[in-house]
Amino acid sequence: MDKVEMGTEDQHEMVAKAFVNHYYHLFDNNRAALATLYHHTSMLSFEGQKFLGVEQIGQKLTQLPFEQSKHFISTIDSQPSPFGGGILVFVSGNLQLSGEEHQLKFSQMFQLIPLPHGSFCVQNDMFRLNYG
Amino acid sequence: MDKVEMGTEDQHEMVAKAFVNHYYHLFDNNRAALATLYHHTSMLSFEGQKFLGVEQIGQKLTQLPFEQSKHFISTIDSQPSPFGGGILVFVSGNLQLSGEEHQLKFSQMFQLIPLPHGSFCVQNDMFRLNYG
Repeated sequence: MDKVEMGTEDQHEMVAKAFVNHYYHLFDNNRAALATLYHHTSMLSFEGQKFLGVEQIGQKLTQLPFEQSKHFISTIDSQPSPFGGGILVFVSGNLQLSGEEHQLKFSQMFQLIPLPHGSFCVQNDMFRLNYG
Repeated sequence: MDKVEMGTEDQHEMVAKAFVNHYYHLFDNNRAALATLYHHTSMLSFEGQKFLGVEQIGQKLTQLPFEQSKHFISTIDSQPSPFGGGILVFVSGNLQLSGEEHQLKFSQMFQLIPLPHGSFCVQNDMFRLNYG
């Protein structure tokens, strides 16, 4: 079999899906490790609050006031960003928190930036609950 | 009064808010004119369908199967993109369509790219309804 060349569209969609699976798996199973996905200029807007850099973002994510979470992803959209090889990822889904009867709906967007060794880090992250 | 210097944070937030007001005002009052906000490499993902460039995007937006719409914005988040002076805008809100009893919830994200004369165009646009 010849090697199958992937178009740019397939590549950013594959990266987006792999990232989303990895991100929410870490969130639900090892939240402290999420900080490793960010770097020193990364930005997080979480329900309108702003956090900058690995330390602030890691603190915010680990200190969220629930023990356990389970994310159920409904949609993943992605597009290439025009500069720097970035990938925009737009996610919607439901979030079940321990001790809560009902799931919460959420939307979240990321910009992923390529790193020299072929992986990606999160440059931009904006999260909102979608209240009913 | 001395001129008040705005930080980058204020600037991208002001651009984001002005853009969001302008975008949904056009959407609800002169939908055909929305195409003027896009350019030839702009991308739209609308409920998972992909459109590229002014012509495809303009056609999709004008052919949406409702006569009148009214967007009610709940949240606007924004962050600077790390390259090219872009601004990421993340919107949530409700959408009332003519002939529909209930409002629909939606989330939408944009990347705005600066143009030489000081305005911005939409490079990336991803839209999703948030089903209950």
